[in-house]
Amino acid sequence: MTAVFAGSSRSLFAPVAKHIEEADRIFANTLATYRSPFGSLIQHLRHYRGKRLRPALLLLTAKACGEMSPAHHTLAAAVEMIHTATLVHDDVLDEAELRRHVETVNAGWGNKVSILLGDMLFTHAFHLTSSVDRRACEIIGEATNRVCAGELKQVTECGNLDLTEEEYFAIIEGKTAALTMCCCRLGAIYAGANEDVMDAMANYGRNLGLAFQIADDLLDLIGHEHTAGKTLGTDLEQRKLTLPVIHALRTLPASEAHKLRDALTKGNARYLLDSLQRTHSIAYARRRAEDLARAARRQLECLPQSECRAILEAITEWCIRREK
Amino acid sequence: MTAVFAGSSRSLFAPVAKHIEEADRIFANTLATYRSPFGSLIQHLRHYRGKRLRPALLLLTAKACGEMSPAHHTLAAAVEMIHTATLVHDDVLDEAELRRHVETVNAGWGNKVSILLGDMLFTHAFHLTSSVDRRACEIIGEATNRVCAGELKQVTECGNLDLTEEEYFAIIEGKTAALTMCCCRLGAIYAGANEDVMDAMANYGRNLGLAFQIADDLLDLIGHEHTAGKTLGTDLEQRKLTLPVIHALRTLPASEAHKLRDALTKGNARYLLDSLQRTHSIAYARRRAEDLARAARRQLECLPQSECRAILEAITEWCIRREK
Repeated sequence: MTAVFAGSSRSLFAPVAKHIEEADRIFANTLATYRSPFGSLIQHLRHYRGKRLRPALLLLTAKACGEMSPAHHTLAAAVEMIHTATLVHDDVLDEAELRRHVETVNAGWGNKVSILLGDMLFTHAFHLTSSVDRRACEIIGEATNRVCAGELKQVTECGNLDLTEEEYFAIIEGKTAALTMCCCRLGAIYAGANEDVMDAMANYGRNLGLAFQIADDLLDLIGHEHTAGKTLGTDLEQRKLTLPVIHALRTLPASEAHKLRDALTKGNARYLLDSLQRTHSIAYARRRAEDLARAARRQLECLPQSECRAILEAITEWCIRREK
Repeated sequence: MTAVFAGSSRSLFAPVAKHIEEADRIFANTLATYRSPFGSLIQHLRHYRGKRLRPALLLLTAKACGEMSPAHHTLAAAVEMIHTATLVHDDVLDEAELRRHVETVNAGWGNKVSILLGDMLFTHAFHLTSSVDRRACEIIGEATNRVCAGELKQVTECGNLDLTEEEYFAIIEGKTAALTMCCCRLGAIYAGANEDVMDAMANYGRNLGLAFQIADDLLDLIGHEHTAGKTLGTDLEQRKLTLPVIHALRTLPASEAHKLRDALTKGNARYLLDSLQRTHSIAYARRRAEDLARAARRQLECLPQSECRAILEAITEWCIRREK
């Protein structure tokens, strides 16, 4: 298995590559009517294409549970569209100028265009979903409600140095896990899986999403060797508390926790890193991510052995070990 | 009929007041789970409640075409939610600080919260719609696609002094008429109307929306007696060309059109008003709005006489004569 997850997401998702391409085609065709007057804007969205984790999860779950159907491709395009909408709006929220080394929509076209483009991606995702059936609309609608609520909670909790672990989990449960959960549930449903398998796949997606986000937050904090100990990472610059920092603040004696808060406020990265080491907070967060990845993996036991099941297993490793 | 449309929208919509209240209740209940942690934010949304033109159109069309059903109340809440989402995002786009004499969400909570709150209203509207059926999701999805595309076109055309009448109509067709059209179509469909009546109601909503927006733009330009001739109006401050100005620029001889462009760029309101008078451009825009209102009214002829049909007729007058 090591050979699989040591590679990039592209090699990991290879067995569903042609299905991901089909979803990409649906994504592009849906927006093709807009070639004029906002052609260059829509074209620019290709730079927002990343790992395609969400469509891959939907399509791999489908194949692992049964037969792939046209509904799966449509829904894979819809979830990627929702994810892209959140990225476009995130870049406005974060005042980001670069994404994947290319200028963001807000940097190139301004915040107004970015807000409306994000809105348009949301509405097109819903319209696309309506070509499937009412149930798909309900599941995707509910998941996006939770994504937005999670993001809103994150923004309103920015700067709260008393954020609890429970509140942190409520945020990532919404902003990340709700959509990965929805992807795996949809994959199973439209492959004709029974209720038990559907629930297992939803739990797989949920646990995987949580593990993925903890690992993502760790990458932000200590991922870049050349900056580790020099900067606080993007999250802390924006005063977003993540799991290791919450753990350190909770574990340290009151007086030292006070000093750490002070260091966070002043942007003292060296002090933060020392505190995290002393409290074994990075190891703690890694362990939590590993536990969640393992919990995700266990959900797959109800599936027959197959190439796609093996990849879904490998993804649980990849998502906590990846370096970007 | 004069007695009806001379009044406020509240008195005009009185016969469906209890149904509007029911839609308001569904709107509020949908967001009730968010009382904590964003309670005050959600509460603040009540200040965004205005005329409720869109739910009123949906509910009046329903009653004029047949029987009111629970689906109508749900859909009336959903269209108002979409309208509210666009208002919340519009206030960010316009950097508005006040709406109905109360601070905007962006002024009180910042742009980040506003963007995410708008997103949340969009997703909740879709989730709510999914409780009805696939067709409702499709119709609302398609209408919101057009609303967003219209708004995006408007933003990207800001500052274009060569905007044609055709392009102006493409913008208002999206940003306003698509949603009023959708409301009337939904009202008819879920009252069991036949295809011809459905199409007539959709055309009613479309023409009404266009007339409404032209009148709205006129109000922005010359609505406030105490500012007329002193300021250009909000639209022109933002370099949004509206129908009378497009007409004046087209009608004037080249050299004078050039002077008017110059006046627009410099914010010379007196010169603009003189030009509009000389070219009868206000009268032209009024006439276009009246023609559209009349076209809307004609679509109602297929309906049996009823109180609600009479109100739908009166709305075509009210929407071009209202003073706010």
